[in-house]
Amino acid sequence: MSANMPNTAMSNYARNAWYVAAWSQELTVEKPFAISILGEPVVIWRTASGALHALEDRCVHRLAPLSLGRCEGEKLRCMYHGLLFDAAGKVVEIPGQELIPNHARVKRYAVVDRHSWIWVWMGDADAADPALIPPAVGFDDPDYILGHGHLDYAAEARLINDNLLDFSHLSYVHANSFGAGPQFAQSTPSVIPLERGVRFERWIPNTMGMSNRKSDTPIDSWQSYDFLVPGVLLMWSAQYPLGTAEKLGFAPPAMEHAIAGLNFTSQAVTPMTDKTSRYFFSWGPHRAHGDKKMRDAMMGMAGMAFAEDKVMIEAQQRVIDGTVDPRIMPTSHDRGVTLFNRLVKKLAEQDGSSAARDAA
Amino acid sequence: MSANMPNTAMSNYARNAWYVAAWSQELTVEKPFAISILGEPVVIWRTASGALHALEDRCVHRLAPLSLGRCEGEKLRCMYHGLLFDAAGKVVEIPGQELIPNHARVKRYAVVDRHSWIWVWMGDADAADPALIPPAVGFDDPDYILGHGHLDYAAEARLINDNLLDFSHLSYVHANSFGAGPQFAQSTPSVIPLERGVRFERWIPNTMGMSNRKSDTPIDSWQSYDFLVPGVLLMWSAQYPLGTAEKLGFAPPAMEHAIAGLNFTSQAVTPMTDKTSRYFFSWGPHRAHGDKKMRDAMMGMAGMAFAEDKVMIEAQQRVIDGTVDPRIMPTSHDRGVTLFNRLVKKLAEQDGSSAARDAA
Amino acid sequence: MSANMPNTAMSNYARNAWYVAAWSQELTVEKPFAISILGEPVVIWRTASGALHALEDRCVHRLAPLSLGRCEGEKLRCMYHGLLFDAAGKVVEIPGQELIPNHARVKRYAVVDRHSWIWVWMGDADAADPALIPPAVGFDDPDYILGHGHLDYAAEARLINDNLLDFSHLSYVHANSFGAGPQFAQSTPSVIPLERGVRFERWIPNTMGMSNRKSDTPIDSWQSYDFLVPGVLLMWSAQYPLGTAEKLGFAPPAMEHAIAGLNFTSQAVTPMTDKTSRYFFSWGPHRAHGDKKMRDAMMGMAGMAFAEDKVMIEAQQRVIDGTVDPRIMPTSHDRGVTLFNRLVKKLAEQDGSSAARDAA
Repeated sequence: MSANMPNTAMSNYARNAWYVAAWSQELTVEKPFAISILGEPVVIWRTASGALHALEDRCVHRLAPLSLGRCEGEKLRCMYHGLLFDAAGKVVEIPGQELIPNHARVKRYAVVDRHSWIWVWMGDADAADPALIPPAVGFDDPDYILGHGHLDYAAEARLINDNLLDFSHLSYVHANSFGAGPQFAQSTPSVIPLERGVRFERWIPNTMGMSNRKSDTPIDSWQSYDFLVPGVLLMWSAQYPLGTAEKLGFAPPAMEHAIAGLNFTSQAVTPMTDKTSRYFFSWGPHRAHGDKKMRDAMMGMAGMAFAEDKVMIEAQQRVIDGTVDPRIMPTSHDRGVTLFNRLVKKLAEQDGSSAARDAA
Repeated sequence: MSANMPNTAMSNYARNAWYVAAWSQELTVEKPFAISILGEPVVIWRTASGALHALEDRCVHRLAPLSLGRCEGEKLRCMYHGLLFDAAGKVVEIPGQELIPNHARVKRYAVVDRHSWIWVWMGDADAADPALIPPAVGFDDPDYILGHGHLDYAAEARLINDNLLDFSHLSYVHANSFGAGPQFAQSTPSVIPLERGVRFERWIPNTMGMSNRKSDTPIDSWQSYDFLVPGVLLMWSAQYPLGTAEKLGFAPPAMEHAIAGLNFTSQAVTPMTDKTSRYFFSWGPHRAHGDKKMRDAMMGMAGMAFAEDKVMIEAQQRVIDGTVDPRIMPTSHDRGVTLFNRLVKKLAEQDGSSAARDAA
Repeated sequence: MSANMPNTAMSNYARNAWYVAAWSQELTVEKPFAISILGEPVVIWRTASGALHALEDRCVHRLAPLSLGRCEGEKLRCMYHGLLFDAAGKVVEIPGQELIPNHARVKRYAVVDRHSWIWVWMGDADAADPALIPPAVGFDDPDYILGHGHLDYAAEARLINDNLLDFSHLSYVHANSFGAGPQFAQSTPSVIPLERGVRFERWIPNTMGMSNRKSDTPIDSWQSYDFLVPGVLLMWSAQYPLGTAEKLGFAPPAMEHAIAGLNFTSQAVTPMTDKTSRYFFSWGPHRAHGDKKMRDAMMGMAGMAFAEDKVMIEAQQRVIDGTVDPRIMPTSHDRGVTLFNRLVKKLAEQDGSSAARDAA
């Protein structure tokens, strides 16, 4: 059916993956929530019973959005001409008509509320594997005091992913906010391929810390993040006694030995359409290393820094749009970008092959 | 000439038809009025003598809009370089040039002021037949007390036509305004093909009326409307004594036997471009069944209801725009929609054939 | 390299020409200035040493705009990931990477600050010939007291050029501002082809002047302007004793014999993209014929008149955009338009041929 056809402009993204659709608290009971993911309109709603459902946001009758509809128990009624959909996407009532055609159904999406995010699986709902949901840190985590927010970008999600896969931009884009000096971009982190992402690890020995956590005496600073399919960043940072990095042979430290500044950030990039994206983020200190006041200071800094990214990336998108045959020239800092994009390409091709096989 | 070429995106609409361009009172004397109809720019002006003229709104010289021009008697001067057009569209003066080429002319449109609307015939002006102007009820009609308005839509006119051709949407889109209950959508009206439209008739026996005219005791309610090419709705409704419907064998009642609530609405949908439309409407009670106060209450309700339609239809347009191969699934309520669209298709094809024949 | 490819929509304009990019005073020291010319993003900056540089505004790495970058001496650093460009467009530093590929360079543009304007040569920088910069009158000219401004147009530059190449529009577009009567459009000026433009000369004998300089007694009025590639208008006007035109056999007068109203205007039209343009203008009296007060009155009138042009030309652009196969019908006033556009076409073709030859 036409309505189920993937947007071809978005075929470079993995479909068999969990995309963040919203913060959990955005989903008010019986109030349908609309978002496009990979160019597909999705309606998500939470019922009075606490269940969560997600369907294609497009009525089979005349393509009105179901997100303008009315929740009725576990069902959702299109409020244009009254067709009633069950949670599986099947039409179960057509006002004024006895017979309901068998093909009167919209696509169902698997949807899960976890780590304070609403996750939608964009592939075949029956094949959705909740074990693939990235281990983000939600507000329900007892260890962290988190703030959160989101920004809408007039830019392709891939450009935001690329940004998050190369932190050398901290020295330039964020020269005035995070305050990583130019030396940050002079060195490269360890880049470790994961099954569904890339891990970045980096010791910065003998430093006074970045703006969000200055130290009075020199310390060794540790930063590690996983960037996971489809575009989820999970990072922790902490400070260790001077000499720790060398003592460990620059291997990863134990989180519990941190002496200060232990914090966690979860970030997610969701491609809405081929040129619009939503960027979700939370950040905050471990309870043993900070309080709400520190969280608020960190969020203030994040607000400034993420606006810096947005200005740069949206400008980058405009330049790309004005370029006949845009090509990039990777640098040594692009190793993570390249690894991740290659992984996504492979997954997208596998998704395409299996979709083609299923259709055959 | 290129300027006379119809916009191909609009070739699904009938050309040999009268389109509403404006409310009559919008046409101030000697003030050119601009509107696109079927994607063609049209300038309409009323002269001091009371005559009404309509031309292609595009100078032959450098394509400046004549609607920025100056009325001079029965003529219109382009205010870019001063070419003067007569009411037939012929250039009669080119400043600084003796010879006027014979092909220096723009398309003339037949235009008529009737029933408080300015009607423009989009086909060959010489073939315009004023007998085909739908019998709307204007402010000059002594029987009705009418309010009026218009709304611009960011949507294809066809979507608005479809809306007006299936009133089952009253139970859903207008659940909070007109207040037709869900049972309204459970039954279907009589649908009668007309030569240039479709007639809908419906008895609602034993009802307390809708929001705009509640009854204290049960009555039989009658509603009848014609939806005529190119997109004009003419509807009257009235209340009759309980039992009238049955007594008449559900045949149409005589208007003069109505005991309450007799009212009339004229509505017109004009395709401006392929994705923009103007929707004109008037509504009000018969003098014997209401007054200006009732008219104002009805217009208040209409304002709310028509905003509900606009939200739904513009959202529907956005979903359609984001769908690769949009297809609909008609229901039993779509009989009128189907009949009307088939009629328009036939007329548009006839127009196309005759245009091709004329060009040969 | 792709980034150097000209925008094909702009291939009708001459590349080997000086385009006005900004007023000189817009170029603050060490603050990069961004403008698109012929669809190409250009960054221009003035260094602390007083030098002026212009590069393609698109980093080789990931296409971020260099205009968001940081000036470092004579170099410009991309503030996304820190690549440093010298004034020739060559990358001289990639943070965290030893080797710099030889093709890591962006296009350099020749740029000159002259007559209060910043001029950019859009062809091969090494072939830039400053002798081709039109002889505008800048604020540094001791003879004139000038005001200035600029307007951004949502219209193709060619439409603005066409406007400036046919002053018969003064009788219509500017009927309410400059106050040239209808007789102005009845006659045509002398139109003289120049090597890189067209000259217009016109005596208006026995006149009381235009709005900007009314005379108490009849005089002979002279107006002469050159319209030069790529789109620069240089005009002087003055009043002479009644009978001068005839005495001179309608030949050009000597500027120094003017008895009143001697003034000069420089105007420039820059194609930014295929549908956007920037229009720069200055105007004012000769010191012997006016003062700052007169200049301000003239600028007030220019503000009104140039807004009239903008309304007309942007409307013209919208009509053209809505026309399937737009064609014009030239009049006798179009001689200058035709000559100039033919010249630009020839130059653009020569540029295209030489570009093709260089690429072979």
